[in-house]
Amino acid sequence: MEYSEVITFVLEIVGTIAFASSGAMVGIERNMDVFGVNVLGIATAVGGGMIRDLILGIAPPNMFRNPVYALVSIVTCCCLFFIVFMNEKFLSSRFRTTYDRIMMMFDAIGLGIFTAVGVNTAIKAGFANQTFLLIFVGMITGVGGGLLRDVMAGVTPYILVKHIYACASMVGAIICVILYREFGEIPAMFLSAFVVMLIRFLAAKYRWNLPRIR
Amino acid sequence: MEYSEVITFVLEIVGTIAFASSGAMVGIERNMDVFGVNVLGIATAVGGGMIRDLILGIAPPNMFRNPVYALVSIVTCCCLFFIVFMNEKFLSSRFRTTYDRIMMMFDAIGLGIFTAVGVNTAIKAGFANQTFLLIFVGMITGVGGGLLRDVMAGVTPYILVKHIYACASMVGAIICVILYREFGEIPAMFLSAFVVMLIRFLAAKYRWNLPRIR
Amino acid sequence: MEYSEVITFVLEIVGTIAFASSGAMVGIERNMDVFGVNVLGIATAVGGGMIRDLILGIAPPNMFRNPVYALVSIVTCCCLFFIVFMNEKFLSSRFRTTYDRIMMMFDAIGLGIFTAVGVNTAIKAGFANQTFLLIFVGMITGVGGGLLRDVMAGVTPYILVKHIYACASMVGAIICVILYREFGEIPAMFLSAFVVMLIRFLAAKYRWNLPRIR
Repeated sequence: MEYSEVITFVLEIVGTIAFASSGAMVGIERNMDVFGVNVLGIATAVGGGMIRDLILGIAPPNMFRNPVYALVSIVTCCCLFFIVFMNEKFLSSRFRTTYDRIMMMFDAIGLGIFTAVGVNTAIKAGFANQTFLLIFVGMITGVGGGLLRDVMAGVTPYILVKHIYACASMVGAIICVILYREFGEIPAMFLSAFVVMLIRFLAAKYRWNLPRIR
Repeated sequence: MEYSEVITFVLEIVGTIAFASSGAMVGIERNMDVFGVNVLGIATAVGGGMIRDLILGIAPPNMFRNPVYALVSIVTCCCLFFIVFMNEKFLSSRFRTTYDRIMMMFDAIGLGIFTAVGVNTAIKAGFANQTFLLIFVGMITGVGGGLLRDVMAGVTPYILVKHIYACASMVGAIICVILYREFGEIPAMFLSAFVVMLIRFLAAKYRWNLPRIR
Repeated sequence: MEYSEVITFVLEIVGTIAFASSGAMVGIERNMDVFGVNVLGIATAVGGGMIRDLILGIAPPNMFRNPVYALVSIVTCCCLFFIVFMNEKFLSSRFRTTYDRIMMMFDAIGLGIFTAVGVNTAIKAGFANQTFLLIFVGMITGVGGGLLRDVMAGVTPYILVKHIYACASMVGAIICVILYREFGEIPAMFLSAFVVMLIRFLAAKYRWNLPRIR
C-alpha cells in the first residue's frame, strides 16, 4: 500500500465517521431506537457509494467487498448513541457546539474525498471518456448518502436546500476529471478533494448563498 | 436518421422540457436555490429512464451515453428560474395559467413518448417475450421521474393520487406491446404514445376519476 | 418440485398477501384511488426482492421472470379495496381487529420467509462467502418493501421506528447464513424463517423495546 493509498484511506474513514454520525444524529433527534439510528447512519455513510456502483454496474457494490466502512459506521453510531444515552444533556450542552464544529469539518473532508473517490472509481471501471458520467457519479458518491438519509427521515434533502453543498462536490468532480487527464490520479484526487473542502469552509465562514426566489 | 427517429427525438425533447419544468417549478415554489431547482428538474426529466435502465441491467444508464436530455433539462430549469427570478409576479400572473396549460399538454406528450420509448428500449435489450416486464418498464419510464421528484420534495407522489396518470401510461404500454408484435416498432410507438396523450387530455377535460374511498 | 419448494412457495404467497395488504391499507387510509392502492401494495410486496436483485446484479429482477407474486399482490389489493369500498365501516368495525391480528401473523411469516429467501438467492448467485452481503440482502429482502411503501407514502419508515422488526430480520439472516454452512439449504431456510416469526410474536406479545433516547 503506497503513501497515497494510506492517506486516501484515512480521509475516507474520517468522512465515514462524519457521515455516519450525521445520520445517527438525525435518528437520535427523532427518538429512534438504537437500530434505527444505525440504519440511518450506515445509509448516510455508504449510501452514496452504493448508488454510484448501481449506476456503474458494479455488482455487488464495493461496500460489500470491503465492509470496513460499514463497520466503522456501526461503531460510530453505537458510540454516539451510547454517549447521548448516558448523558442526555449532551444534545443541548456546550460540548454540542464543539461537536458540531468538528463534525462540520469532518463532513467537508468526507464530501471532498468521496467525490474524488467516486470519479476515480468510474475511471477505473472503464468510463474515462464519459465526462458527464464521471461528474455525476463523483457528485452522487459525495451527496447520495445524505440524500438517502433525508428521504428516509422525511426531511427536505440537504442537497436541495443547503447552499453550496452539492455545488462544492460538483466543482470538485469537474476539477478531478480535468486534472486526471492532465496529471494523473494522485494530483487529481488530492487537489480536487482539497478544493471541495476549501469551498465548503469558505461557504460556511462567509455564508455564501446561491440565488433563490422568495 | 430516419423520419420516425426525428419525430421520436422531437417528442422526447418536448417531454423532457415539460418534465424538467415540472420539477423546477416544485423547487421554485419551495424556495430552493438555483442548484436545488436544477437537481429536481433533472431528476424528473431523466429519472424514469434511469430507473428503467437499472432494472434492465443497462449500465451505465442511457442518459449518460447521450447527455442531450440532461442538458436540455438544465437549460429549461435555468431559463425558468431566470424568468421567475426577474419577474416574481409570474407565479401568480395570468401568464401562469397559459404556462400551466401549455405545460400540461407538453407533459402528456412526454408521458406518451417516454412510455413508448421505455417499452421499445426493453424490447431492443432482448426482453421481447417478457410481457409483464415490458409493461412495467414502459410505465416506470413514464412516471418514474415524477415519482423521484415527489419523494425528494417530500410530497405524496403524483402517481399515487392523480387520477388517470400512471393509468394512462399503463394502457399505453399494453397497447405498445400488442402493436409491436403485430405491426412492428413504428406503428406501436406512435399509436401507443398517441393513446396515452388522448387519455390524459380526455381525463383532464372530463375530470375522469378512478374509484376511491372517502 | 420437492416438498420443501412447495412449502417455501406457500409461505412466500402468504407473505406476499400480508405485505401487499399492508401497502394497500396505507393507500386506502390516505384516500388513494384503486390504482394508487395497487401501486403501494405491489411495491410493498415485491420491492424488497427487487432492491436485492439490483444489489446482486440480477437483471431484470426475479419478480419479472415469475410474475406470480405481482399478480397475487394485485388480486389482494383489488379484493381489499373492493371489501372496504362496499362496506366503508370495515375500517372501524370489530372485524378490523381480527383482520389486523391475522395480517400481523401473516406479516411475520412473510418477514421470516423473505429474509431466508433473500439469503438463499444471494448464495445461489455465487456470493456464499460474502457474509456481510448475505446478511444485508436477507434483511433488505425482508424489510425493503415496507421501506419503499413508507417512503412513497411519506411516513417515517417502519424499520426506523418499529422496535424489533428489522432486528428480527437481521437475527434470522445471521442464523440462516450459519446454518446454511453447517447443515445446508433446507434446515437453514426453515429454521431461520421460524426464528424470525418467533421473535416477532414474542416482541409483539411482551412489547419488547430496544433502547431509545427521549
